Parts: sequence; C-alpha cells; structure tokens
Amino acid sequence: MPPRSSVRGVRAEVISVGTELLLGDIVNANAAHIGRELARVGIDCLRHVCVGDNEERIARAIEESLGRADAVILTGGLGPTQDDVTREAIARVTGRRLLADDAIAARIRERFRRMGRDMPESNLRQAEVPEGATPIDGIGTAPGLIVEHGGRVIYAVPGVPAEMREMVARIVLADLQERAGGRTPIVSRVVRTAGLAESAVADALAPLWGRVPAGATIAFLAGGGEVRVRITVKAPDEESAAALLDDVEREVRAALGPAVMGTGDETLEVVAGRLLRERGWTVACAESLTGGLLGARITQVPGASEYFRGSVVAYATEVKRDVLGVDAHVLADHGPVSAETAAAMARGARGRLGADVGLALTGVAGPTELGAPVGTVFLAVDGPIGAAVRGLRLPGDRETIRTLAAAAALNLLRLYLLEAAG
Amino acid sequence: MPPRSSVRGVRAEVISVGTELLLGDIVNANAAHIGRELARVGIDCLRHVCVGDNEERIARAIEESLGRADAVILTGGLGPTQDDVTREAIARVTGRRLLADDAIAARIRERFRRMGRDMPESNLRQAEVPEGATPIDGIGTAPGLIVEHGGRVIYAVPGVPAEMREMVARIVLADLQERAGGRTPIVSRVVRTAGLAESAVADALAPLWGRVPAGATIAFLAGGGEVRVRITVKAPDEESAAALLDDVEREVRAALGPAVMGTGDETLEVVAGRLLRERGWTVACAESLTGGLLGARITQVPGASEYFRGSVVAYATEVKRDVLGVDAHVLADHGPVSAETAAAMARGARGRLGADVGLALTGVAGPTELGAPVGTVFLAVDGPIGAAVRGLRLPGDRETIRTLAAAAALNLLRLYLLEAAG
Repeated sequence: MPPRSSVRGVRAEVISVGTELLLGDIVNANAAHIGRELARVGIDCLRHVCVGDNEERIARAIEESLGRADAVILTGGLGPTQDDVTREAIARVTGRRLLADDAIAARIRERFRRMGRDMPESNLRQAEVPEGATPIDGIGTAPGLIVEHGGRVIYAVPGVPAEMREMVARIVLADLQERAGGRTPIVSRVVRTAGLAESAVADALAPLWGRVPAGATIAFLAGGGEVRVRITVKAPDEESAAALLDDVEREVRAALGPAVMGTGDETLEVVAGRLLRERGWTVACAESLTGGLLGARITQVPGASEYFRGSVVAYATEVKRDVLGVDAHVLADHGPVSAETAAAMARGARGRLGADVGLALTGVAGPTELGAPVGTVFLAVDGPIGAAVRGLRLPGDRETIRTLAAAAALNLLRLYLLEAAG
Repeated sequence: MPPRSSVRGVRAEVISVGTELLLGDIVNANAAHIGRELARVGIDCLRHVCVGDNEERIARAIEESLGRADAVILTGGLGPTQDDVTREAIARVTGRRLLADDAIAARIRERFRRMGRDMPESNLRQAEVPEGATPIDGIGTAPGLIVEHGGRVIYAVPGVPAEMREMVARIVLADLQERAGGRTPIVSRVVRTAGLAESAVADALAPLWGRVPAGATIAFLAGGGEVRVRITVKAPDEESAAALLDDVEREVRAALGPAVMGTGDETLEVVAGRLLRERGWTVACAESLTGGLLGARITQVPGASEYFRGSVVAYATEVKRDVLGVDAHVLADHGPVSAETAAAMARGARGRLGADVGLALTGVAGPTELGAPVGTVFLAVDGPIGAAVRGLRLPGDRETIRTLAAAAALNLLRLYLLEAAG
C-alpha cells in the first residue's frame, strides 16, 4: 500500500468505553468508524483502546494515551446512568471539578418535554461538565466534550453510533484539522469497481504510478466481490484539491473502464437500480444457490418496487421446471447447474414475472458437490437487447460463494444496462 | 445485568495487531470474539488494545499489558510478509532470540507440497519461534505461540478469523484455565428464545431469581428478534457444574415454554430445518417485503435442499396473482398487505412449489407507507395440520423491519412444526 500523508504530524488515539465491548457482546464498530474518518482527513491514529465502565481504568487509559498522542477521542460512557463515568474520568485526569451546566440541563429538560415524557432526574448527570471544558450539543440527549489539557486535547463523544458519527463529522474532525493548522487540504474520494480481482485492479492502475501528481496517493481495499480505490490528495486549498481529485479519478476511470461502478457509498444494487430507472425497465430474478440473497440485495434500496418485479428461488429442480418453465430436456441434458439452464431461468423469470429484464444464477455453494465442483456458478441475463451467459468458478466457503455470486449477478445486470444505453 | 464470577482472579488483555484495524478498513471482530470466549469461561478481560504493524509499538503494548494482566492474547501479525512483526515484538519484550523451528518449517513445506504449489521462501519466517516458546499448530500455515515470561503468559494467534477461533477454542482457553488452577469449575450455557421481547423474557424469569442456586447467574442479550439467556454456574467439579446447569436450564425452559428454540449456536433456520427433517416435510416460501431474506436464511444451512423447495419473492402485486395464484378479489378487497393475502400466498407457495408446508409474509418495510403503516407485517403458514395467520407491528428502520420479519416467519414455522409433533 502506498504511504499515507499525515496532517502536520498530529497523532490521535481512540478510547472506547463500555464493558459490553470487552465482553464481546457488541463489536467495536465505533473505533473502526473513527479510525476511517481520521485516515480520510490524514490524521495518524496510533492506537485503539477499549476499557470497561470503570472510572479508574478509563482515567488510566486517558493518561497513557495523552503520553503518546496529541489528541484523544473517547466514545461511550456519557449516558445518564451510574455506569457512565467518562465525564468523571476526564475530570480526574485533568484535575478539574464537574460543574452543572444550566444551558445543557435546560436543553435536556426541553427535549423530554417535547417528547411528552417525564425526565428521570438521573438525566441531569449529563449536564455535568469538567470546569473549563466546551460542551458539544448533539442529536441525542448526551452532550459531547472538548477538554484542553497540557497542550493536548481530549474529545468525548457518545457511544450511540448515530450520535457519535454526527458529532465526529460535524465537530471533532473540523476541530482537529483546525488545531493541525487551519483547514486541512487533505481530501479523499473512493472509486468503486466490480468484477475485477484486487490484483487486476492493481495491474490496470500500475501505469498510473509514474503519472499521479505529487500529493496524491492511491490505495486499494477488496471485499465482497468489489475493489475500492481510495484516492487521497493534498493541495494548497480545497478548490485545487477537488481539481486534483477529478484529474486522478479521470485517469483511474480511463484505466479501469466499465469495471468502475460508482463512487463513495454507492453499492451495486443502488447503481443497478438507478440504471433501471433511467431505462424505464423492470427486472425479475431467478435464483438457486443464493436462496434469495440477490432479491434481498436489490430490495435493500428504498423504492425498489418501482423496478423490481420479484424473484423465483428455484432450489428444487422441479421448481425450475414448473414455476420458471425451464424445459425438462434442458435440465436432463445439461443439468441444473449449466449455462443452458441459467439462460432458460433468465428467460423464465422475464416471462413469468412480466419483467423487461430477467436475471438468473445457478451453481454449487457447497460444502458438497452437486453435479459440478463447489464454486461453479452460471449467470444469465435476458432482455430487450438480447441474452448473455457467464460461467464463474468462485473461491471460499458456502457463505462467501453465495455472497460473491449475488454480487456477480448484480454486476452482470449493471453491465447489461450500460450496454443498453451505449 | 447480574454480576459475573471470575476464575480465581486471572486477568487477561487482548492486543489486536494490524494497521488495517486502525484505519477502520476492517472492524475488530476478533477482539469481540476473544472477549466473549474469555467471559464465557469466567476470565476477566481488562482491556482490548489495537496497534498497527509496527514492532516497537506492538512491543510497548505487550509490555504495558503485562504490567496489568496475568495473560496477554495477541492476534494478528503472524503472517509471512515483512509487515508481520508480532514474533519479533514478543522476542524483544521477553529478551529472547528468534530461532528457526525445523518441525514447523517441515510442516509448512509439506502443506504447500500437498496444495501442489511452490512455497515462497518468505513463508519460512513463520517457522521462527522465540527461544523457549511453545509453538501451536493451527489450521492455516501460521503457527501460534505460547511464551511464558516473568510468571505471566503471552499467547499469539493468527489474525485470520477462522484460524484464530480454532486456536483460541482448542488451546488458549484450556491453557488459561489450567493456569488458573486446574480445570475450572465455571461453565455457561446459552438458552435461545424467539418471539419474545427482552422485557418479556426478563418478566417470565423474574420468579426464578429467588430460586436460582448459589453459584448460578443469568444474563440476557437481545438482538435480531431473539433473546439469548446465558446461564453461568460455579461448582466444585465439572459433573456438579453440568448438573447445576441442567437444573437451571430446566427452570428457564419451564418458565419460557415454547419460546425456547434451542441452545448454544443453534439458529432459527437450523432448528426449523431439523424439525422439517424429523417430520419428513418440505417447505416453500412466498415473500414480499423481505425480498428473499427468508429463503436466504433457510439456505444458509448446508443440506437445506433436502427440505427447502424454493421461494417466490412476489414484490409486484401481479406476481402474487400470476405466480402464486392469489385471488384477484382477495388482493382487491383486502390489499396486498393483509392477513387474507398472506394466507393465500402461503397456500399458493405450498401448491405451486409442491411443498408440504407453505410459509408466507407480506408487509411494509418503509420508509414510505404502502396502504398500511410502516412495520405492518402479516405472516401465514399452511400445511398438513391446517393454516395460521399472525399480524405484527415491527419497530425500526427498513433493514431492521426486514430482518425481524424474516425471523418472525422462521419462528412461526418452528412453532407450527412443534405443534405438528405434539
């Protein structure tokens, strides 16, 4: 992976507070989110620490992190119950008293009044602030905190993921960047590809290395049948940073062609849905080894009913014949896992469910073979501009093969719709 | 939550190694897994730490953890590349040399030979072991390590989840328990319930509190439409521990009745599959708002083809009519989201897909209403012992409603199959 640039050497650590994290009752997705956001704006993160709801242990973790880093971001332990002791731990480490903040108390009371609920008195613990700290108002009742201490800074944000994300995005990153010397000119953009292995993406982009302008770096991340290409640039101001990002994105797109399926958070099902809407077409599916995953992914998108007719999960061979109308001879001659059957399933889905485009897949997810080796998958699409079939051999266990097969089918649909437009 | 007991005060910390974790490219599910396993056998975990692939920083983290805990479990950084420096960091902290272990080298060579692949020489780095350490053979190429140091113990296991889990389950937990003073008498068992809210489970079990024998505790964990009840007991020996677990489990089952769906890792789809096999029946589904999630869950179980015929995802109303044969009058009079339509979909799935039992659900996942409020769901089952319909009002966002609806349908199937047996 190419080296990452950092903002004037500002170094941060993340401390997650919560006994439920130590016990593994929940996975620490908050630390991953904050790590990702810090990386995105170019701030080095040295360590993630997770401690239980214990004032002394939290205080010790803060002290240690302040010994290594310029900024410490705490998440969790800001709630109203006696368990929530992050405020107390910060007060202890920084040698300050906790004082009730009247403005915060009024906001908390007002929030309960608007919901028509009585406020338990314990909620007023959330209005306590270490002397001299700056409270941060959030989307929940728990306010966050900014506490300066010995030339370093401590941020405390809630553990509730939505409240944490909002506060990090709106306040913490900006404040950190400002401390790092004004608005930072480091920005990044993710270009998403589908249907290519990580090594294929790397090979296709190799000629770019020499041409990428100074201050720009490219990194890859593979997973779930996709490879994401993250472009990060450093420039004197935001405008030239955006222009630089556009330049590099253009080169990346030229090198990867139609394998590029979107940018940012766009998923295959969102992109395929948009293309269907643009053509004014509907789609219907016929699934086998995926058991319904393909339809489930397509319908993750709100409003999918505008273009998704439905899916037939034809797990038993007779369902392929009776519900999808796959010819018994095709099944007998080529078997249920074959290019011919996949093509007939796509035609059947299109016809029986009354859709413009039929999309089908059949294969062997394992662990046992089924007339073909584990990982064998055939995809087919059938629609107004003709039909196409693809054979794949996917790696991994049952769950991986099913996930990759559904992604490959969505990508086949995407490429078909692009071809229909071109 | 009731207090947890711990094994003779043995305290552990978990150190996860990997720059990709700090960057948030992947979520630290390994730490959660190890935390859960430690809690299960009653070993206190004080802290999770995550550091990048940097020998000095890993060494410093180990040193600090050894200052607080009796045992340190490292995961990650044992691979063959130059990035993987956990071995070096352990050698540095414990003041030992790294020596090549011939037996491990031979095993690695043999593994590559069996796969018919050439072994890159870099793989031999994995055969290096700190002097005096005990290597642990695993299911991958990376061996683990047990290193005793100053009356404390360091475990190193791979970062690849499957390899880590296998080594923790087979070696680390047992070794830790032995160090804690022989075979530990603390064991736990999870009783899984479906169809009840956490508060309903707590209320049903409230009368037990006074009766639970000394040394036994009960904790709850809710998620995905299920509530898990964890029973933990402490007893002089394993036999009496098992007897105590049986006693408490019997009381829990008596209090919760048919809401108890299994123990341990059994999921709803595994339990429903087993009941179908026992009856010798097949099932077919008709889905709407879930888009295929129900079929996808049923087919997560290897061998599901023995009892799963398939599913019709009837997203469009005409598909409910044309493919499932739902009467146009039913759709017109009651709407697609109604008890009557759900019942007709279950009948249709059963008939059209040739199954013994038909299972159907229809509803509104949101974000927009669709003739009924968001969260409205109707479930239906139809089979040899008759038909049943249930109406639900589920909370949450689109994804939550879809997940809970699929779980509720699987639970309806389970209860139907239980009734068929009784």
